[in-house]
This record gives sequence, C-alpha cells and structure tokens, in this order.
Amino acid sequence: MKLKMMYSFLNSDINIIEKKLEETIQAESLLLQQASLHTLQAGGKRIRPIFVLLAGKFGHYDIDVIKNVAVALELIHMASLVHDDVIDDADLRRGQPTVKAKWDNRIAMYTGDFIFALSLELMTNIHKPAAHKILAKTMVEVTVGEIQQIKDKYRFDQNFRDYLRRIKRKTALLIAASCQLGAIAADVEESIHKKLFQFGYYVGMSFQITDDILDFTATEEELGKPAGSDLLQGNITAPALFAMENAEIRHEIEKVNEYIEHQQIEKIISLIKQSGAIEKSIALSDLYLKKALEILEELPANKAKKTLRDIAKFIGRRKF
Amino acid sequence: MKLKMMYSFLNSDINIIEKKLEETIQAESLLLQQASLHTLQAGGKRIRPIFVLLAGKFGHYDIDVIKNVAVALELIHMASLVHDDVIDDADLRRGQPTVKAKWDNRIAMYTGDFIFALSLELMTNIHKPAAHKILAKTMVEVTVGEIQQIKDKYRFDQNFRDYLRRIKRKTALLIAASCQLGAIAADVEESIHKKLFQFGYYVGMSFQITDDILDFTATEEELGKPAGSDLLQGNITAPALFAMENAEIRHEIEKVNEYIEHQQIEKIISLIKQSGAIEKSIALSDLYLKKALEILEELPANKAKKTLRDIAKFIGRRKF
Repeated sequence: MKLKMMYSFLNSDINIIEKKLEETIQAESLLLQQASLHTLQAGGKRIRPIFVLLAGKFGHYDIDVIKNVAVALELIHMASLVHDDVIDDADLRRGQPTVKAKWDNRIAMYTGDFIFALSLELMTNIHKPAAHKILAKTMVEVTVGEIQQIKDKYRFDQNFRDYLRRIKRKTALLIAASCQLGAIAADVEESIHKKLFQFGYYVGMSFQITDDILDFTATEEELGKPAGSDLLQGNITAPALFAMENAEIRHEIEKVNEYIEHQQIEKIISLIKQSGAIEKSIALSDLYLKKALEILEELPANKAKKTLRDIAKFIGRRKF
Repeated sequence: MKLKMMYSFLNSDINIIEKKLEETIQAESLLLQQASLHTLQAGGKRIRPIFVLLAGKFGHYDIDVIKNVAVALELIHMASLVHDDVIDDADLRRGQPTVKAKWDNRIAMYTGDFIFALSLELMTNIHKPAAHKILAKTMVEVTVGEIQQIKDKYRFDQNFRDYLRRIKRKTALLIAASCQLGAIAADVEESIHKKLFQFGYYVGMSFQITDDILDFTATEEELGKPAGSDLLQGNITAPALFAMENAEIRHEIEKVNEYIEHQQIEKIISLIKQSGAIEKSIALSDLYLKKALEILEELPANKAKKTLRDIAKFIGRRKF
C-alpha cells in the first residue's frame, strides 16, 4: 500500500496544510520567497504534519487550530534541512538543487532563519504553555545534535550510544514532538499525549535507521543523491557501526576521508553490504518499530490509531 | 556620564542577568558551550536587557519573571550577530575573533541556531500570548531584513527609504520589542506598552544611524574593527547616502567593490567625511532621538523614565 493511501481520509485536511504552507512563506522579499518555495516544492513526505493531524484525532480535532501546528512542524523540519545542506555542502536533495547550491550559503542561512521564524509565528496561535515548552526544548536538543554530528564526523571510535543519541536529536525528537503537540493542540489528556510522544520517538528512531540503511542499499535515482553519501561525508551510521565489528572491515572503513577515491569508497560500501551489517541494522530498526507498535496498543481505538500503525510499519520498512 | 552610571540602581538585577546568561548557555556539548561563552564574553552594552528591565519598572516588576525576557532578548541579539559574522565574513567583532573565525562557518551557524533556541526556551516562562506574537513577528522581520541587506550590497541606486527600512529591521525592531516585552511581562497596560515600543523603535533608529556614523568617524581601536568596514563590504549607510547627493562623490562611491584597493577606499572615506554627510547623518539621528524623547514625555513619571531619557541621549550621541 502506498503511503498516501493510508491517510486518504485526511486528504482534504492535507490540502489545507499544503495551501497554508505556501501562504505562510509569502514574503515581502522575492528572493526569500523563491528560496523558501523552492524548498517547499522539493517535496518530502510531509510525515510531521500527518503525525500532527493523526495525533489530534485523539482529542477535539479542529483543523483551523491544528493546521498551525502541522505547518509549523513542517517548516521547522524544512529550516533544518536548509541549514544542514550548508553544513554538508550538499548540492542535491531529493534530486533537486539545494538552496545553497541554487543561491549560496549566505542566502541558505537566512532562508533557514526566516522559515524558522515563520514557524514560531504560527505557533503563537496555540495558547498552551506546555506546547511551547516542548517545542523549545526540542529545538535546543536538535541544535545540540547538529553540532554533535559535526564533531562526530570521521570519528571512527564512536559507538552505538553516540549514534543513537545523534539520531534521537536529529530525527526522533521532532517526530515525537509532532505527535505530542498535535495531541496537545486538540486538548488530549496528558497520559495520552505522553504516549503519543513515545510512539513518535520510537517511529522516528526506526525511520532514521531505515534512512541510514537506504543510503547504502538504494539506488542514486531513488535517493536523489549518490549512494554511500553518509559514509563519504564521515557520517558513521548503523550499517557502518555493525560492519566495524569485523576488524578487517573496520580497518578499511577507518581509511575513509573526504578525499577518498570513488573506487575505494565503492569497495568499502560493498564490504559493508556483504558483512551482514544491513540485516543487523534492519533488525535494530524493527526493534524500535516493535516498541512503537506496542505503545500504540495502549491508546484508545479509533481510525487514527489504525493509520498510525500502518504508517509506522511503512516508514520503518520502506524501500525508499 | 558613563552608560553604566545611568542605571546603577539596577546593578544587582544586571548581575542577575549576567549570571543567568552564563547559566543558560551551559550545554552538554562543550564545543557549543565554548562558542556561546566566547560570544557572551565578547561583551556588548547589554542595551536590550537594560531596556527590558527599565520598561518593566512601569508595571509589576518581578526580576524572577522579567529576567527571562531580558536574557532571551540578549540571546536573540547574540545569535543574530553570530550569523551576521558568517555573512559578512567578519573575523573581528569588538576587537575579539568571531565564532566563525575562531571555529568555522558551520560551527557559527549551529551556534547561532542553538543560542536562538535557548532564547525561545526562556520565553516559554512568559505565559502571555501577546509577548510571543510580538517576538515572533519581530524575528520574521529581522530575517527579512537580513536577506534584504545581502541584496542591497553594493547597490548604489538605493535610497533613504531602503536604508531606513533596513535599519528598522536590523536594529530598531528588536530594541522596540525589548521595551514592549519588558512592559508586557510586568503587566503594563496596552496603551503604555505600545508607547514603550514606539520609544524603543525611535531610539533604535537613532542608535543604528549613530553606529553607521561611527563606522566612518571612530578609530579602529574604538570600533574593534577597521574603520569604513561598512562601505567596503557594500553596506550603504546614511553617511554614504548623504554624500551621494553630490554627483562627483557619488561617482567615486560607485567604484567601491570588494576588491577595491586600500588607498582608494581611504580616499573615498575622506571625501564622505568632508562632504557634510556626517553632520547630516547626525541631524537625522537627532531627529529620531527627539521623537523618542517626545514619546517618553507621555509616559508616567518614575525613576525608569529618567534613566530611559539619559540612555536614549547617550546612545544617540555616543562617540563609540
């Protein structure tokens, strides 16, 4: 089943979100508007808004209220991608030129700042102190994680604890916050919105591990960027960490640096794929997925719950 | 009179602000903490926190509440400086190496994001929707202004309207917001906090025009960076705009680009200083200062009002 089919009952609300995204980035500065629109139109699965809306279904769902949260979370995600592309010196994302490639690093930095400020403006429509506290804490953690990711580059003595903490901050916390804030905006009681946070956290971990696997196993066409980019950029993810349990492969991986030749990195990627590391990574992702589904069982039954289950399974096991 | 003498009755509260600033930037990441602390210790006049506190004196002043706003506003200012130094490729600020010079652009970008996220976390202690709306709108305007500043670089056909709109977004709005948010945090009634916003706006305009004058007239030692940096970087400010009213000087100024020789820029700076443009710029700054002082007259009399008057005069006419 395709992802979009899973939440077809939300279609009209997803359209509202898309329209609101486009409306929000209207800027007096044509340059800012173009750079933001470019990022918006590069696509993406809109996973965060979908989680916001579904979590809202556990309470008093009002699209006119909750759309602010859904759009804000997608904008925060977009802003962080624009900044990340500067750091990673990435020219392509989802097969499209990045803002930093199409304009330059300076424009990308301020475009990220602008999109982030817009998200805050939307959030001011939500008069719940708890929502703001959760979001601000998440933002702090995300930025700490971003710095950590820079520090951990090409650091081959890192362990799984470093990796898991990094992907928690990089991905899982914002998905967890999407679930929790969607629920809070819909007046869902605390015991439930805390479980939705947990669900989002586990799904987010599984999602990112899957992403990290796909960077090794998917084709360049599917990824919209060359396969093996993570390792080439010194970003040590689950498959590399599992593969490094083998001393010989570890020795090869430790040779990776920015200037490594194309042929050599291809060889190392092959070694990793043959080592069983991909299967171990899939098992790790499945472990988080299982935890997510368990938490879900504790939530009241409704249409959203079934959809959350389907989406969790999809994004934890997707092929690209 | 020295600036610090003007608000000596606030000394113990200013110490609380300094301590809270240092506490807030404690980070799990040592690198982030060092980069943030470096920015913090580079100094600055702490104008924004002082305005927050003084504005709070028009209402129910509680340092335990208002310190959150004061520290948040200073952090937002710091974050924007860290990002601006990347854009301006600036190695020095206030005589100290910038974050981007001491570390690199990537660290500077995320340090800015981190400091900004911390400011949001502090603001969640203020449960007043109006405060959050004003701050978010200000942030959007500030980022629009930053992009505009990039677009306007070396654009010699710009006029005073472009310049004034730019410095409004760059400086005046955040100072205006400092005054208004300090008042809102102290439950000051709307008619008064709106006037404090206006006061801050006019002071901010005067402050930035003075800053732009000093970039031509102060010494490298006073500025902590080479004089004439603005023009060299293509940032066309009041003195250059006034000087361009003379067609011959305009012709010379239009030759400025990033690769201009040291001797030639020195010559152009001399021409601007001899043209009467500095005096006209001072008059413009005084005009805004006068408006600020007029608004102040409409506010209830108290100790803070007198101090605001002294500070406004000081920062509108300071020598460095």
